[in-house]
Amino acid sequence: MTNVAVVGVGQTKFGELWEHSLRDLGVKAAAAALGDAKAEAGIVQSLYIGNMSAGRFLGQEHLGALIADNLGIPHIPAVRCEAACASGSVALRSAYLDIKSGNADAALVVGVEKMTDLANDEVSMTLAAAGDQEWEAGIGLTFAGLYALMARAHMHKFGTTREQLAMVSVQNHSNGKNNPYAQFNMAVTLEDVLNSSVVADPLRLLDCSPITDGAAAALLVSDKLAKQFENPVWILASEQANDAVALHDRKSIVEMQAAKMAAKKAYEKTGLSAKHMDVAEVHDCFSINEIISLEALGFCEPGRGGKFVESGAAALDGEIPVNTTGGLKSIGHPVGATGVRQICDIVRQLRGDSINQIKGAKTGMNLNVGGSGATAVVNILGNELKGA
Amino acid sequence: MTNVAVVGVGQTKFGELWEHSLRDLGVKAAAAALGDAKAEAGIVQSLYIGNMSAGRFLGQEHLGALIADNLGIPHIPAVRCEAACASGSVALRSAYLDIKSGNADAALVVGVEKMTDLANDEVSMTLAAAGDQEWEAGIGLTFAGLYALMARAHMHKFGTTREQLAMVSVQNHSNGKNNPYAQFNMAVTLEDVLNSSVVADPLRLLDCSPITDGAAAALLVSDKLAKQFENPVWILASEQANDAVALHDRKSIVEMQAAKMAAKKAYEKTGLSAKHMDVAEVHDCFSINEIISLEALGFCEPGRGGKFVESGAAALDGEIPVNTTGGLKSIGHPVGATGVRQICDIVRQLRGDSINQIKGAKTGMNLNVGGSGATAVVNILGNELKGA
Repeated sequence: MTNVAVVGVGQTKFGELWEHSLRDLGVKAAAAALGDAKAEAGIVQSLYIGNMSAGRFLGQEHLGALIADNLGIPHIPAVRCEAACASGSVALRSAYLDIKSGNADAALVVGVEKMTDLANDEVSMTLAAAGDQEWEAGIGLTFAGLYALMARAHMHKFGTTREQLAMVSVQNHSNGKNNPYAQFNMAVTLEDVLNSSVVADPLRLLDCSPITDGAAAALLVSDKLAKQFENPVWILASEQANDAVALHDRKSIVEMQAAKMAAKKAYEKTGLSAKHMDVAEVHDCFSINEIISLEALGFCEPGRGGKFVESGAAALDGEIPVNTTGGLKSIGHPVGATGVRQICDIVRQLRGDSINQIKGAKTGMNLNVGGSGATAVVNILGNELKGA
Repeated sequence: MTNVAVVGVGQTKFGELWEHSLRDLGVKAAAAALGDAKAEAGIVQSLYIGNMSAGRFLGQEHLGALIADNLGIPHIPAVRCEAACASGSVALRSAYLDIKSGNADAALVVGVEKMTDLANDEVSMTLAAAGDQEWEAGIGLTFAGLYALMARAHMHKFGTTREQLAMVSVQNHSNGKNNPYAQFNMAVTLEDVLNSSVVADPLRLLDCSPITDGAAAALLVSDKLAKQFENPVWILASEQANDAVALHDRKSIVEMQAAKMAAKKAYEKTGLSAKHMDVAEVHDCFSINEIISLEALGFCEPGRGGKFVESGAAALDGEIPVNTTGGLKSIGHPVGATGVRQICDIVRQLRGDSINQIKGAKTGMNLNVGGSGATAVVNILGNELKGA
C-alpha cells in the first residue's frame, strides 16, 4: 500500500487582495509550496483545485486547466473539486487517492477563492449555495442564520454561554496576532465580541469569519518519492463523511454527525485517538462551530465544548492547542482555500517551523467542514509513518 | 492492481425538463444505474458528481452531499468534480482512481446539469466561464465563437468544406432518431443545416448542440465485486490530458493537443489503437469538434476528418461507427452529464443492448472535451479484461 506525504506547503497572504486575480493567487500559492519543497513544477503529475464558487464570484469555471497552464504545466490532468467550504479538503483527499491508486507519484493541491469582487449581499447569496437552495437559501436563510440556529440550540440544550462563544474568537484572534498571512492581526477582547453588532442572534460580527481572498497549496508525493525530500509529513488518514445538506434533515442540530463519523474512521484507520493529538485545526467559520467541532473530534464530551474552551484546554498552552495560528476567524476564510490552509499549518507545526510552535508536536489533525456540516473531512498527519 | 468495471448505467430523458429539479434528475439517473445493475444504493461507498455550473444555473453548489442525501445514502463521502463540459468524465475518472486506490469497492458517478432555467443569453455567459474569462469571455467570445474560429482555420488549412460540417449533424440526427432519451429525434437534411440561421460564421444553428437538462449515471466496482454482476464492462484505460484554456495560447487551433495526448496515453496503456475500436463516442458540441476529434483519436490523418465523415466511414455501417445514438447534437448536451452519458452508450454497445446495435462490438472508446479543448478525457472500455 502506497503511503502519501506532504513535502511542501505554501500560501498567499489572506485578505482583500484587489491587486491579484484568482489565477495569480493560485499560482503564487503553488509556487510557494513548490519552493518550500525545493521542487520544480515539472515534478507534478496531477493537479487538484479546491474552489467553491469562482463561477459565481468571477464568471470563471474550469480552474484545473486554467491554473495548470498558468503554472507552466498545461498538459497534466487537472480537476476542480467542490464541496462548499470543504472544497480544499476534498481536493486534497482526491490527490491523496490519486497517489494511493498508483496513477501519480506527485500531485499538487491548490485551494483558492476570490470573494471580495462581489458586493457583500451577493457574497452571502453565493455562500448560501452551500446550503439547500430549495429549503434554506430560497427562504432567506444565510449561513450566519444556520449557525445561529445551531448555537441557540446548543446553548439551550447544554447551557453553553454567550461568553464561551466569544472566548473562541478572543483565543483565535490572539493566536493570529503574529501570523504574517492573516487577514486580521488585531487582538479582540471579550467585550469587543459581546458588543459587536448582531449578525444573526446570538451570533455577532466577531463570531463570524470574514470574507477573504486567498490561496493555499500543498505538494503530495508517494513514499517512493518522499525520500528525496526533507521533512516529509505523512498523511496517516484522510477520511470524509457526509450528512444531509438541509439542517432540518439532520438527526440533531447540536452536533455534527458527519464530523464525528469522519473522525471515527480516521481514528480507526490509525489506531490513534484524540488524546494522541499534539495540535489541531478546526473549522471556526462561526464561533459555535469550533465548540461543536471539539466535541465531534472527541477532545471533550458532547455538550462540553464551551466549558472546554473556557477552561483554556484549547489554548496554546492547553491540553490540545487548537487553531494555533488564528483559525478562520483571524486568518480569514477564502472558502475553497481553507482546508488546504489548515494542512499547511498542521504541517508546519509537525515540522517544527510554525509561528506559535507547539514544542515537540508529532501528530496533528484537522477538521474542515462544508456547509452547516453536510461535508466533513478529517486528516491525521504525523512526522513519522507509524500508525498509518 | 485493482481493475474497475462498469456494472450499471442509467440516464434521464434529455431535454427541457421543467417538471424536474436538478436533484430529481440526479436521483433518477442514479436509480436507473442501480436498477440496471440490480444493486441497492447501500452498496455505494463513494459518490462523484459531474457538474459544471449549478452555482450559476440554480444557485446550488455542494451537490455531492445533496444528491447523496436524496439517494438515501447521506453519510458516504461525496464530491463534485468540475472541468467544464468534461465534468462528467473527470467525475468518472475520480471514481475510477478511488477504486484503484483500494479506498472503495463501489463508486457511483452521476453527471447532471439543469440549464434551461436561465434565459438563453445568461446560459451563453454561464457557458463562457468554461473559457478564459479574462481573455475570451470578457471580450464577448462565446463558445460558438471559439469553435467557429477553429472551424474557419480548419477549412482554410485543410480544405474542409461547409458541407462536411453539415454532414456531421445530418449523421448524428439520423443516429438519434430512435433514441428514447434524445432531446431531438427529428432527422435533418444537408439543406436544413446549410439553411439554418448563422450563429457564429461558419457555424449555423444546426451545427450546435442544444441547451439541455439531464443526468446520466454509472456504477463502478472493483474486480473483487464485479463477479456478482452480469455483463461487467471493463474500463481498460481512463486518461486525461489538458491544454491552455485560452485558444490563443495553444500550439495550434486546428487540432486538440490535449485529446491527442489523452488518446496516446490510453492506447499505450492498453496496447490498443484506433483500428481495434468497434465503436466510439466523440464530443460533437459543435460539428467541427467531431471532425477534429476523429483526427485526434487517430481514426484518420490530421486534416482528413471532414473527408472521413463525407466518405461514410463514421456512419453506423462504416469502419468506425461514431456517436451511434445521436451524439451531443441530437441527444442534447447537459454539460456536466455528457461524459457519463457517453459511457452509458458505450457500455450498452459493448453489452449488446444498444439502439442501433453494432454487431459484435467488443471494444469502444469515448472522448469528452472541456471548453474549447483545454480538458480532454479518453476512456477505453472492453467487454473482456485483456489489454488492461
